[in-house]
Amino acid sequence: MNITSFAMVLAITVAGINCSAQSTQPAVIEDFKPSPLNQPGQEYPQVNSQGYARFRILAPYADSVRVSLGLGGRGGTLLTKSADTSWMGTTEGPMDEGFHYYHLTIDGGKFNDPGAMNYYGSTRWESGIEIPAHDQDFYSLKNVPHGNVQQVLFPSSSTGTSRRAFVYTPPGYDKNFKNRYPVLYLQHGWGEDETAWSNQGYANLIMDNLIAEGKTQPFIIVMTYGMTNNARFGKIREFKIDTFQTVLVDELIPYIDANFRTFANPAQRAMAGLSMGGMETHTITLNKPDVFSYYALLSGGTYSPEEIKDKSKVKLIFISCGSKERPDGVKNAVVALRDAGVNAVSYISENTAHEFLTWRRSLHELAPLLFRN
Amino acid sequence: MNITSFAMVLAITVAGINCSAQSTQPAVIEDFKPSPLNQPGQEYPQVNSQGYARFRILAPYADSVRVSLGLGGRGGTLLTKSADTSWMGTTEGPMDEGFHYYHLTIDGGKFNDPGAMNYYGSTRWESGIEIPAHDQDFYSLKNVPHGNVQQVLFPSSSTGTSRRAFVYTPPGYDKNFKNRYPVLYLQHGWGEDETAWSNQGYANLIMDNLIAEGKTQPFIIVMTYGMTNNARFGKIREFKIDTFQTVLVDELIPYIDANFRTFANPAQRAMAGLSMGGMETHTITLNKPDVFSYYALLSGGTYSPEEIKDKSKVKLIFISCGSKERPDGVKNAVVALRDAGVNAVSYISENTAHEFLTWRRSLHELAPLLFRN
Repeated sequence: MNITSFAMVLAITVAGINCSAQSTQPAVIEDFKPSPLNQPGQEYPQVNSQGYARFRILAPYADSVRVSLGLGGRGGTLLTKSADTSWMGTTEGPMDEGFHYYHLTIDGGKFNDPGAMNYYGSTRWESGIEIPAHDQDFYSLKNVPHGNVQQVLFPSSSTGTSRRAFVYTPPGYDKNFKNRYPVLYLQHGWGEDETAWSNQGYANLIMDNLIAEGKTQPFIIVMTYGMTNNARFGKIREFKIDTFQTVLVDELIPYIDANFRTFANPAQRAMAGLSMGGMETHTITLNKPDVFSYYALLSGGTYSPEEIKDKSKVKLIFISCGSKERPDGVKNAVVALRDAGVNAVSYISENTAHEFLTWRRSLHELAPLLFRN
Repeated sequence: MNITSFAMVLAITVAGINCSAQSTQPAVIEDFKPSPLNQPGQEYPQVNSQGYARFRILAPYADSVRVSLGLGGRGGTLLTKSADTSWMGTTEGPMDEGFHYYHLTIDGGKFNDPGAMNYYGSTRWESGIEIPAHDQDFYSLKNVPHGNVQQVLFPSSSTGTSRRAFVYTPPGYDKNFKNRYPVLYLQHGWGEDETAWSNQGYANLIMDNLIAEGKTQPFIIVMTYGMTNNARFGKIREFKIDTFQTVLVDELIPYIDANFRTFANPAQRAMAGLSMGGMETHTITLNKPDVFSYYALLSGGTYSPEEIKDKSKVKLIFISCGSKERPDGVKNAVVALRDAGVNAVSYISENTAHEFLTWRRSLHELAPLLFRN
């Protein structure tokens, strides 16, 4: 996918986020519970069994309180003032299952919901809400051995600073000092940062659960900032990969290989990214065919067979998106890659759009396929 | 210190937070710069060289916007509406150097400043602002070897869940597999959680810098949630230590000793805490004299000589607070302990109150004294 088509996809999907409001809505069932992502002790926002979200904001002297969720061309959910001076409202339809960023507009200013925890997206710390998914078990916190997520500060001479990465090490990493592990470099999307995959993505819990079930071999995941937000909306075409490619390939990978017990070779190294992180993955894997052997784009475009110069160096290409995105584009691209002799796999997340449940599920599908051959 | 006097100290110090406004204020110098803790790309809040803070909030149709900082019995800083419909205001006096929690009150509702990053304090994610301190070098991010901060999820049968802790491992931990390390268990205060010491406390950077200068030996720091917020204001006297003591002593310490390369003995184990975490430290170290040998209370009360049943088991007692708290109480307690034959050290942080610069400095003073004998 070239940058122009990526920008188009991004514009379409951002405009379409949470457009699940339908013309005829089911009657609201009054079984609302606090969202799992609320701040400690906070009763609101709430979610019911159908996926409706209900908000309650205390601002007794405000003139207008709006929630950015529940779009559909109608500007979100307008709250109404209750007798007790709180503002309340319910989305006019069920939301898609999974995680959603949102914010409030109070008398014309943009603020977060004090009831919810904050997640970095859209280049700001947004509020987050979780509509419990029917398949949430795969990313739930369970009584299984847990890996750790480490914050590392690695030296970057190209940018003149110490940069932050988060490193998932699987259960047992700190006990079996002779074991070495493959590594997945996993990128966030535009507007997000290196906190996304372990905060709203639950990458660590997805891995812990897969490993406990014997469905994937243990590997390390490295997550750092893709410098994507140097490209604000409308300037994505001007985004240049060089700066991040240098940080990733010339600085971070050598640091990880020197400081963690990795298999330091391309056959045991993967790169994946969501949305604009997929665009980065696409560009860097093609620019550096001797660095990675496994490539994955999650709602982040496709590869064409012509782009793969030496097919013997590619062990797997995984391409996914939500069913509400462009599933046919993903499936067709994978068919073309397979016809050209590339080991390619597609995955479509049912009933999700350009959001994190698509990407949690994609990681869950991808992990068992990595480092197999 | 008993619980009643702790509650009194807490009430006094909370009421006194940021009370730096004086009757006659210096003229404001117009050299304001964005606070180091702003969200990416955000120009406000700003701080000038004198320590004044200036806020700018966009909420064109609001009737009233107030910032909780710059107290002194006057209810914070009331912003005024500018011609461009933003609300602006400057604290009426310089703030104390260091970190301050704050929030906005917009038309009667409590919200965070969208320009600032969020920090968990007062049992909510508050906005944070940093008044650069004259001695900020000791907690600055420098080009030195960095340790990692790991999120671990440890099994807790007493609470029936996996609980979170953050573990600082010093530079070189992942390379020298034969080395073992002492451990400091470091607690946050009331209203905070296990994120405080590495987010607003910079415990990892303080350690990295001390180790690079050869001023402290490398050790591990473990930070977990002290369950302090089971005691809301007014109910602190009802707080029972048992639940947390069980988690810490019977679950977390064995997990850390089993999963990290520690010296698993009391002679190489310390406990410290700030404010209500100091109260926890005080109680648990006295309840469990065979678990820890180094005790530290940061703005968190004192020990009396009579409380130390077997002085041979205590290698160090460190007691600190800000000069705007109760420095005489700290100094007198340490004199009494020394007179009784206990190796005790006091530290007073100059020109700070019950806030994180006091505790950053205290950790910086404490670390070189630990695990020496």
